[in-house]
Amino acid sequence: MKREVMWVKAMSNAQQSINSPSSKPNASAFLWNQHMMLNVNCRGYLIAQFMQPEPSKYAFAPNIEAKTFMQPEHPYFAHHPGRFFYIKDEASKTVFSVPFAPCNEALDKFKFTATPKQVIWQIEHLGFAIDLCLQLANDAPFEYWQISLADLTGQNRRVSVYSYFTLGYMSWMNQTANYYPDEDSIVAQYVTPYQKLSDYPKLKDTAQCTFLTSSHKPDSWCANQLSFEGVKGLHSPAGIQTVSLNNKPAFYETPVAIMQHRMKLSPKHQRRQFVFGPCHRSAEMASIRKKHVSLCEKAFSSTLAEHAPLTYENFQLQSRDAKFDDFINHWLPRQVYYHGDVNRLTTDPQTRNYLQDNIGMCFLRPSSARECLLRSLEQQFASGEMPDGILIHPEAELKYINQIPHSDHCIWLPLLLEVYLDQTNDTSVLHQMLAFQDSSEEKSLIEHIELALHWVLSKRDHRGLCFIEQGDWCDPMNMVGPKGKGVSSWLTLATATAIKVWIRLVNDYKVDVPTSDFAHSLRELQQAVIQHCWDGNWFARGITDDNELFGISSDKEGRIYLNPQSWALLAGIDSDEYKSKMLMSVDQHLQTPFGNQMLAPCYTQMDERIGRVTQKFPGSAENGSVYNHAFAFWIYAMFTSGEADKGLLNLKEMLSAMHSEQAGQLPIYLPNYFRGAYTQFPETAGRSSHLFNTGTAAWIYRIVIEQLFGLRGCGKDLWLQPQIPSSMGNCDVRYRFRNADIHLKIEFGNTLTPKLEINGRMAKDLRIENVKEGEQYALKFQLPYDKQQRQAKLILVCGVSGAGKSTLGQALAEKLGAVFIEGDALHAKEAIAKMAEGVALSEDERAPWLARLQLTAAQKLAHGYDTVVSFSGLKAEHRALLMSINVNTKLVMLAPSESILQERLLSRKGHFFSPHLLASQLASLEMPSPSENTLVIDGGQQDNVQQLLHQMHDFIAKQTPNDE
Amino acid sequence: MKREVMWVKAMSNAQQSINSPSSKPNASAFLWNQHMMLNVNCRGYLIAQFMQPEPSKYAFAPNIEAKTFMQPEHPYFAHHPGRFFYIKDEASKTVFSVPFAPCNEALDKFKFTATPKQVIWQIEHLGFAIDLCLQLANDAPFEYWQISLADLTGQNRRVSVYSYFTLGYMSWMNQTANYYPDEDSIVAQYVTPYQKLSDYPKLKDTAQCTFLTSSHKPDSWCANQLSFEGVKGLHSPAGIQTVSLNNKPAFYETPVAIMQHRMKLSPKHQRRQFVFGPCHRSAEMASIRKKHVSLCEKAFSSTLAEHAPLTYENFQLQSRDAKFDDFINHWLPRQVYYHGDVNRLTTDPQTRNYLQDNIGMCFLRPSSARECLLRSLEQQFASGEMPDGILIHPEAELKYINQIPHSDHCIWLPLLLEVYLDQTNDTSVLHQMLAFQDSSEEKSLIEHIELALHWVLSKRDHRGLCFIEQGDWCDPMNMVGPKGKGVSSWLTLATATAIKVWIRLVNDYKVDVPTSDFAHSLRELQQAVIQHCWDGNWFARGITDDNELFGISSDKEGRIYLNPQSWALLAGIDSDEYKSKMLMSVDQHLQTPFGNQMLAPCYTQMDERIGRVTQKFPGSAENGSVYNHAFAFWIYAMFTSGEADKGLLNLKEMLSAMHSEQAGQLPIYLPNYFRGAYTQFPETAGRSSHLFNTGTAAWIYRIVIEQLFGLRGCGKDLWLQPQIPSSMGNCDVRYRFRNADIHLKIEFGNTLTPKLEINGRMAKDLRIENVKEGEQYALKFQLPYDKQQRQAKLILVCGVSGAGKSTLGQALAEKLGAVFIEGDALHAKEAIAKMAEGVALSEDERAPWLARLQLTAAQKLAHGYDTVVSFSGLKAEHRALLMSINVNTKLVMLAPSESILQERLLSRKGHFFSPHLLASQLASLEMPSPSENTLVIDGGQQDNVQQLLHQMHDFIAKQTPNDE
Repeated sequence: MKREVMWVKAMSNAQQSINSPSSKPNASAFLWNQHMMLNVNCRGYLIAQFMQPEPSKYAFAPNIEAKTFMQPEHPYFAHHPGRFFYIKDEASKTVFSVPFAPCNEALDKFKFTATPKQVIWQIEHLGFAIDLCLQLANDAPFEYWQISLADLTGQNRRVSVYSYFTLGYMSWMNQTANYYPDEDSIVAQYVTPYQKLSDYPKLKDTAQCTFLTSSHKPDSWCANQLSFEGVKGLHSPAGIQTVSLNNKPAFYETPVAIMQHRMKLSPKHQRRQFVFGPCHRSAEMASIRKKHVSLCEKAFSSTLAEHAPLTYENFQLQSRDAKFDDFINHWLPRQVYYHGDVNRLTTDPQTRNYLQDNIGMCFLRPSSARECLLRSLEQQFASGEMPDGILIHPEAELKYINQIPHSDHCIWLPLLLEVYLDQTNDTSVLHQMLAFQDSSEEKSLIEHIELALHWVLSKRDHRGLCFIEQGDWCDPMNMVGPKGKGVSSWLTLATATAIKVWIRLVNDYKVDVPTSDFAHSLRELQQAVIQHCWDGNWFARGITDDNELFGISSDKEGRIYLNPQSWALLAGIDSDEYKSKMLMSVDQHLQTPFGNQMLAPCYTQMDERIGRVTQKFPGSAENGSVYNHAFAFWIYAMFTSGEADKGLLNLKEMLSAMHSEQAGQLPIYLPNYFRGAYTQFPETAGRSSHLFNTGTAAWIYRIVIEQLFGLRGCGKDLWLQPQIPSSMGNCDVRYRFRNADIHLKIEFGNTLTPKLEINGRMAKDLRIENVKEGEQYALKFQLPYDKQQRQAKLILVCGVSGAGKSTLGQALAEKLGAVFIEGDALHAKEAIAKMAEGVALSEDERAPWLARLQLTAAQKLAHGYDTVVSFSGLKAEHRALLMSINVNTKLVMLAPSESILQERLLSRKGHFFSPHLLASQLASLEMPSPSENTLVIDGGQQDNVQQLLHQMHDFIAKQTPNDE
Repeated sequence: MKREVMWVKAMSNAQQSINSPSSKPNASAFLWNQHMMLNVNCRGYLIAQFMQPEPSKYAFAPNIEAKTFMQPEHPYFAHHPGRFFYIKDEASKTVFSVPFAPCNEALDKFKFTATPKQVIWQIEHLGFAIDLCLQLANDAPFEYWQISLADLTGQNRRVSVYSYFTLGYMSWMNQTANYYPDEDSIVAQYVTPYQKLSDYPKLKDTAQCTFLTSSHKPDSWCANQLSFEGVKGLHSPAGIQTVSLNNKPAFYETPVAIMQHRMKLSPKHQRRQFVFGPCHRSAEMASIRKKHVSLCEKAFSSTLAEHAPLTYENFQLQSRDAKFDDFINHWLPRQVYYHGDVNRLTTDPQTRNYLQDNIGMCFLRPSSARECLLRSLEQQFASGEMPDGILIHPEAELKYINQIPHSDHCIWLPLLLEVYLDQTNDTSVLHQMLAFQDSSEEKSLIEHIELALHWVLSKRDHRGLCFIEQGDWCDPMNMVGPKGKGVSSWLTLATATAIKVWIRLVNDYKVDVPTSDFAHSLRELQQAVIQHCWDGNWFARGITDDNELFGISSDKEGRIYLNPQSWALLAGIDSDEYKSKMLMSVDQHLQTPFGNQMLAPCYTQMDERIGRVTQKFPGSAENGSVYNHAFAFWIYAMFTSGEADKGLLNLKEMLSAMHSEQAGQLPIYLPNYFRGAYTQFPETAGRSSHLFNTGTAAWIYRIVIEQLFGLRGCGKDLWLQPQIPSSMGNCDVRYRFRNADIHLKIEFGNTLTPKLEINGRMAKDLRIENVKEGEQYALKFQLPYDKQQRQAKLILVCGVSGAGKSTLGQALAEKLGAVFIEGDALHAKEAIAKMAEGVALSEDERAPWLARLQLTAAQKLAHGYDTVVSFSGLKAEHRALLMSINVNTKLVMLAPSESILQERLLSRKGHFFSPHLLASQLASLEMPSPSENTLVIDGGQQDNVQQLLHQMHDFIAKQTPNDE
């Protein structure tokens, strides 16, 4: 696996930073190895788990925490687990803490940096320079920490450094912590609480100790949390008011691991290393110290540039969008690799997650994907059914959501197999013989796959639609089908998709099985969904046990779901008759500046026809967040159905959401969701869940490589069918495919058809035939420029409250076939409450709303929709903000008389605006200047529409091309 | 139920206070009603649960807490649930919080007071007077709060009061909080997290809202925790830096309930009331407000003195020990009543707890005890077996420890029945017909009891000892008998006791059943224990599945258990042959200044013969704490076996432990344990568990009434057989018995036998015959003075390290039949670690050790034991401390030459003392002055003992009477 030096260098510089602990307080980085995973935020709060074999903790909150899966939008608080260093200037007795908590004091300089293998804080405060670094051990669930300090004042000051490593409330049965002088270590021991005798044997051999050890003998120590904290609190702990720590153990008291190191500083950095992690008994400390303290020192002795190349950086892109490149080159494959490398650090990954995560691994470590396929199919039932989770450890059992019966696990098998074969051409896997969970009879992988497909096909109702049980891909959709009658349109479409893929594989890889029955089933499935679930403009989500269609236009909430539309396209229902309506419907109802919501409007109360999803907070998780996994399906469907421009636009929306201030995360992973409910809770929309376990990563990686850049294997060949819009510009791609190095240069130029040159010779078609291991391929790809598209138009309808903006705006949009945006709908709940009480918003309060309006309108225009926006627009400045986003803009100002306005406001119901605000509005109204290209009319009644259309005739007719 | 006014007045003044939030930081009070229970500590931290029907919370920690039973020594931390009020002086912007947290600032004056129905803080700070009061609603799970403020400076300052009521992390599914202006309330709503469809129906109807409402419309509010707290932390929250709160709701964010009330203060108190609690939906707020805000105002408008008499104050004592009286009169019956009134707020009380708690209710509300008996026996199996828990709610199920099979539940039935019959003479209960859990055939209560006894008797091994299963009274003793072979000596003795009681009831209440078979079984049981479990000086605890006796002198840990000794006496094995040895053994091995440990030495590692108890932290809970329930059995056995003096001494030790600084609690309840492991972890011994759920209360109440004051019903009569030592002095007792009012005056005087006068007439024997409801009985009881006892002697053996103190002291004690106390054994672990490193202790560090030594020696002397104490005693001041505790004291100073000392110290192993300290010891040695009554000898070898005994002949021979 020799690589060019140049290439390695390019890969080693991945890093993302923030320069304040307050701008994105929960921004975090994650690290993992085969034994553990941790998530550390910029303030030093930390969540870590290690496997023994089930996920366990070695540092806790100060009360008994529930054992659950990872939580979205995890809350941090003063005593949250974390790793902190108090710094005390011995002369002045001034104290602060790094990285930030628990003192939470503004620091002179702060930089938090995530790199793939290391987390770094660089801090300057009160003339001290402090670098703090975190890595993980390679082969143990241990944290390696280094703090290095220098004095910038030239006074060679003395400091004390107190490492404050939380341990928390470990157990009500037994918890103790003490210092072991022979090993310079603090070791806490506990007994995991249990009551049942049957739990003892498995607990007996687990690690029930946590240690902290240091490269340097501490000058004092404390293992007793309360005695250290004292009365005031962690921001000003009693323990560091004295010269030394109290050397106090914890005897059935909340333990902690604190060491004091005194140092005399100079401008040269002094370093201390720490190793922290779980162990089985204190007696192990001697050997742990011996091995890991030196490994820890060594880990920090190499500089960033010396790091080994990362095995997952197989696809490297250079385009004009550096942010895009950075994420696609470094962070996305890292996230993909994490999932497949450690299977989300569970012992029973959900079958669907396990298979999809390994779609990503096909590009990075195909052997894992092969193993995944075989292991999964060995746990298949002889009936063809797949279990809800795949056990990947001998002691594992199905837990949490894997105890709920789901209906979709079979359909992911051909989808993974497709990518695996395309990436490897390893057709031997097809003939691999495998037994079943409940039968020792061995059958080939081909037969296993066919059994799986037949099993899903057998679970259909009289209409030919697939039963949903207690959830399909959507876990909490648990009340649609528990009686055994409810069906899922999505699952029916997903089954069709799986069959479509299988037929393709049988053909492309020359599998010797007939496909005509499957082809017939595929048509049946498509027809069933079209016949029973088409709602006129989109597909419904399913039919309940009580035979009620849902996810349809007559629903008040959950009117439209994203997945049935995406998968209708994937399943081959992509004729323009359906596609154009679905696209328009999705863009109108589900699109937000942070991506497409999974459903809308979000449920605000329990709908017992549908279940648990409707109880989740509106805009969170499956209840209408921008659930990126579903959004990725949509993007994939855009590319596969010939809508590459829209696909790339959507993809960039996903990445820009990740970068946004609102998300509050570092752009180093795609979260499982951004908050949705954009028109219901606009103020929180776009927030990241901060959870990096998501099927999104694998799909987006696949989309970029196979669809956007069109690099797709088939048999012995690599096809090149890029779908890059010319707006993306020329690109330089290096891609390692089947151990061949491909260097692809894409250029847009004066060509009518794509042209491919391989190692200086024109290719006869768009592929590398018979790709050879170890070979280097220099490709030059010429692409034609896209056709210029017309530029969409923006019409602003402004005026004081009651002027008739909404009525007129809506009517106008209808006439023009434009999208209508009701400005008031984007006000935050708090602002609405305020205005309802008759208080005008301040400019500061109005700013986020204007920003949302701008963002929303710009997005619709970018997607090519003429757009009508109604909003007050009293100030020229506000109007200018909106007009700045588009070349083709027209302003309509409604100005009825004050008496008419009063009358209208008093008679209207259900609107939050208080009539008392009218006077203040009229006072602040700045009538448009001539330069604003304005039509002023005196009312907003329906009959004004014709008049307006007439007046705007020229504007409407104008065709401005979209220039780059 | 008419009462004398005088009496009522006496009862209404119960209160206990502390004057600092730091002396006992976790000191707490508890309140309950039929719907809820709460425990609030002096700093404002609070734990509350309400029943729906299972115990639920309405305020949480900021992370997902596990659902468990109450934890001992509960840890508090910055973001722990609590109710706090920030006070901001509007002029100076100074902020502090009451009662103490979260600002945790030293307050000018602080008083925290628990009364039976109210918790009160009285605070003065910066010229403000602030009273804070908490009560519970009568018929709803609501907290009533009142804050009242006055300005003491005469400046009529303006303040803002911010009520900070925590809500915490309510759910990962859905959590939201908002202000409802029409109801002046903040309501938080959440969806209890669940995944299984089957959990939905029962969750559906639970209260999933928490509200805060106030008597006065707030000037501003905040329902969004993070936005209020800001960056710095709760000690300096961002939310109160601004003029008003931000009126911000929480949308899937950690909620909180904060209201701002602005006030202009004067010297006259201004009041604001708050109601806080769970509800089902925000729509209920109008009716909740209407009813409860006025009830809340009313609740605080009456003064303490106007409170209604408390129904549980049926026994009122006036003796010379006011602390004793206060606890027995007010707090103990309150604790007893709490247990029986709400059954520990569980829906499935453990059978043994339920029956024993109702032993207490026999004195306070006998109807509850009757109900308990009948309900329990209806859930008996037809085999006679009792279930592990009694379900007291239709939706209840057996949880936690009730899922572990225990073997003792039957034996508590006759014990409860005895007290019930003695208190009520309600013999009708005996003939009550009842069915079974698994059979509809009805049998009389007599038959049920006999079935229960036969069932326990049937579960014995070939030796006649009772099988222990996975635990008898000791829950975590789960590995003695899981194979079905292990037996419990305690259970065998308890069975004997139960049979003994049953035979007594059959005789005294003339039940028409034969008892000869039971009498035979009783003798069998006694003999089996004597034959198989007597270890020479005490009874073993049991025999394991593998036929190993444990709880015996050859065990290194868990050598002696308290319960087998107590119950041997109760079971009638009380001949002097056994009793004197058991008493001496218990006092020598289990006695601590905080009460008797349940076992000793505490286990420091898992013993797989015995089980989970050995994994608990040494000195906590069942692993050798002063487990008060067991200690109460011991005290009961002292009284019933004619050791009333010792019984009272032990009882007062229990109460004084509750008062001690070390316990850290208010003396308003007996905790389930004080930390034990007195010689293993002396520094933490005596700490209260702060848990008030314990069988202790009922037993101690029974002991005081039936044993100490000898007020015991039998048939129609009330017997008076007090066992009060004359040291207790004259007593005045008012007792409500079967609705008769008894006024008993006890006087010690010149009489040889007890004399009883009833309503002015001499009684023919010591009873009121045929006690009549509504009657008043004035009793005068003359008792003779106790015989004077000899006063025990104290010998101190002092000298530098290596002088031979221990060797000589131990030998001396043996010769004299005295108790030996090794001073070094009472050093804290930290002190030992320090000395082992060659660092001398400071006077401050030595002080707690000296106090322990003093306490320990004084206790042995009080129990009548001659006592030899070895300790360095280098300083005259330290020796004086020890000598001050006893009249008869002798000091022996060992003074060998320095060279001998060096040699000895270097050759001895396994002792912590560092030889380097010798010089420092010799330097600080102050040789005794003549006034110290000293023998100075030059060595500590065995052959010195004879010489010493000779020299001390007069001292040893002297018989000093114990004067009061």
